[in-house]
Amino acid sequence: MKLATLKDGSRDGRLLVVSRDLRYAVPAQAAGTMQQAIENWMAVEPLLQAEYHALNAGEAAAAFGFDPKAVAAPLPRAYQFVDASAFLNHGKIMEQAYNLSVKKTAGIPILVQRQGDDFLGPCDDYPFPTAADNCDFEGEVAAILDDVPMGVATADAETHIKLFVLLNDVSMRAHLFRELSMGFGFINAKPATVFGPVAVTPDELGDAWRDGRVQLDMRVSRNGEWFGQPNGREMDFSFGQLISHLAYNRNLGAGTVLATGTFSSPHYREVGSACLAERRAVEMIDHGESRTPFMQFGEVLRFEMLGNDGQSVFGAIEHRMVATEVVA
Amino acid sequence: MKLATLKDGSRDGRLLVVSRDLRYAVPAQAAGTMQQAIENWMAVEPLLQAEYHALNAGEAAAAFGFDPKAVAAPLPRAYQFVDASAFLNHGKIMEQAYNLSVKKTAGIPILVQRQGDDFLGPCDDYPFPTAADNCDFEGEVAAILDDVPMGVATADAETHIKLFVLLNDVSMRAHLFRELSMGFGFINAKPATVFGPVAVTPDELGDAWRDGRVQLDMRVSRNGEWFGQPNGREMDFSFGQLISHLAYNRNLGAGTVLATGTFSSPHYREVGSACLAERRAVEMIDHGESRTPFMQFGEVLRFEMLGNDGQSVFGAIEHRMVATEVVA
Repeated sequence: MKLATLKDGSRDGRLLVVSRDLRYAVPAQAAGTMQQAIENWMAVEPLLQAEYHALNAGEAAAAFGFDPKAVAAPLPRAYQFVDASAFLNHGKIMEQAYNLSVKKTAGIPILVQRQGDDFLGPCDDYPFPTAADNCDFEGEVAAILDDVPMGVATADAETHIKLFVLLNDVSMRAHLFRELSMGFGFINAKPATVFGPVAVTPDELGDAWRDGRVQLDMRVSRNGEWFGQPNGREMDFSFGQLISHLAYNRNLGAGTVLATGTFSSPHYREVGSACLAERRAVEMIDHGESRTPFMQFGEVLRFEMLGNDGQSVFGAIEHRMVATEVVA
Repeated sequence: MKLATLKDGSRDGRLLVVSRDLRYAVPAQAAGTMQQAIENWMAVEPLLQAEYHALNAGEAAAAFGFDPKAVAAPLPRAYQFVDASAFLNHGKIMEQAYNLSVKKTAGIPILVQRQGDDFLGPCDDYPFPTAADNCDFEGEVAAILDDVPMGVATADAETHIKLFVLLNDVSMRAHLFRELSMGFGFINAKPATVFGPVAVTPDELGDAWRDGRVQLDMRVSRNGEWFGQPNGREMDFSFGQLISHLAYNRNLGAGTVLATGTFSSPHYREVGSACLAERRAVEMIDHGESRTPFMQFGEVLRFEMLGNDGQSVFGAIEHRMVATEVVA
């Protein structure tokens, strides 16, 4: 099943059911918003599935053409957004290039609490104050969870994954090292986050969802040029491991968005990277200097995943970086 | 004006208007939930004020006795919860006792993104898995903000503070140094957060709200014994400075909860502390060892602030620490 959220002027938008081929959509009848659907998933999911099947069969009378420009993030705001750094290869390259030393503990995943109040849709312009902030991107996938009880076992944790989404974890590198070295995670380093057009249930991924990983290429391009396509199979922790660590000593409320961290592959020389910082770090290691510039105003980014059937899973994020208008 | 949220079995509860003396409450007519009130504050606030005045005048027909045990956190869940560490004295004592070195930048406040999906009410039992996690408390105040535009100036930022709340930022110290030294903020170190019974508009504080600080004592007791009463005037950053730093490069969504960090005073030998870690650090400095134990199951904590008129501002947080029931 594929779901999206139509921008309708409200803060939470209007839940849509979207056809598998992403050509058609219809307003969901079983729930008005994504948050309502997640909170009542047991009751709502079979009804939404029935609407999805009717839409795919060409039997939804209210169907209209699906336009990714008309949608918000599938979950337009979240009571919890946690980002992992679950591809250890990424950290390894960064530490090597910049002589960093992150004090990791073996077997404990890196997770960071993030803001859930400022999510952008897949084609929204992305405003930021100055290119001097060293604007970067990170191609990621996130799970959306229903209620997770404190102390959930890793073996049970993945039953709480109701949907997956695609995201660009936009990062301002000029603030990142300073904030990281302080210890308290990210504030100015990680402003608004951009999400792909639709959320999909795990069954839509077929075989590609296995071992707790979304085993598909993250296809990233910059201004129409190929940038990289690392695969989700390279994750060093499964979603189950991430969830059980997060829920060790508290309940997680329905609608938690839990992201993987930037996709990254040890075979980066063949498959490239999903963020600028990593390519710049490889250049630093190879040439003693970084050559690929950070994002400038007017540049366009694109992120997409194709399923094993060649069909776009989430639709594409395709957005432009723009200068913030002065507001104060 | 004082507002609270009645537990009614729903996730967001039912908004209450509470009398100034905290003796009576009445269901709000102008908004069903706190989040709805904050999102529509301009329209809703005058109506709520009228209900408040009627209640205080004994003219609210539907009034009933206010019971802090029957309420949830005033905002039971939040799309953004950020905690500052705005009393630099606290960090200074911690760094001295444990030979830490937090890489602060002068003039930039420490802020940390936190989870907004698991807030507890003022008298809820607080479950945690094991006393070996070194359970601690931190007495704090938070502002609840309406929509804040990107780039807001410090001088304008405090106009976005609609309410203040009291909180106990429960901390598991066994995880804290490990997570802090990794750089990515807190996960297992900061589980559920406990909030005081009512939220109050800034005017309820009178003179005590000035220079961007809530200038009242944070009265903390443990098992009925005085623990400390540091004053909010000791904050090294104003709320305006914290807000403008947070909003530097993005919009903040209505309902952001922005907390001060644990109250702390350079005169700690007279006024005590608002957290165990700080008292233990002072003991470490004085005696070469910490003597005050962390929280055990069954212990009770109490936090309260009295206004300059001697009246309890927020009502009291008074909760008991208990062992988590095995859920998985």
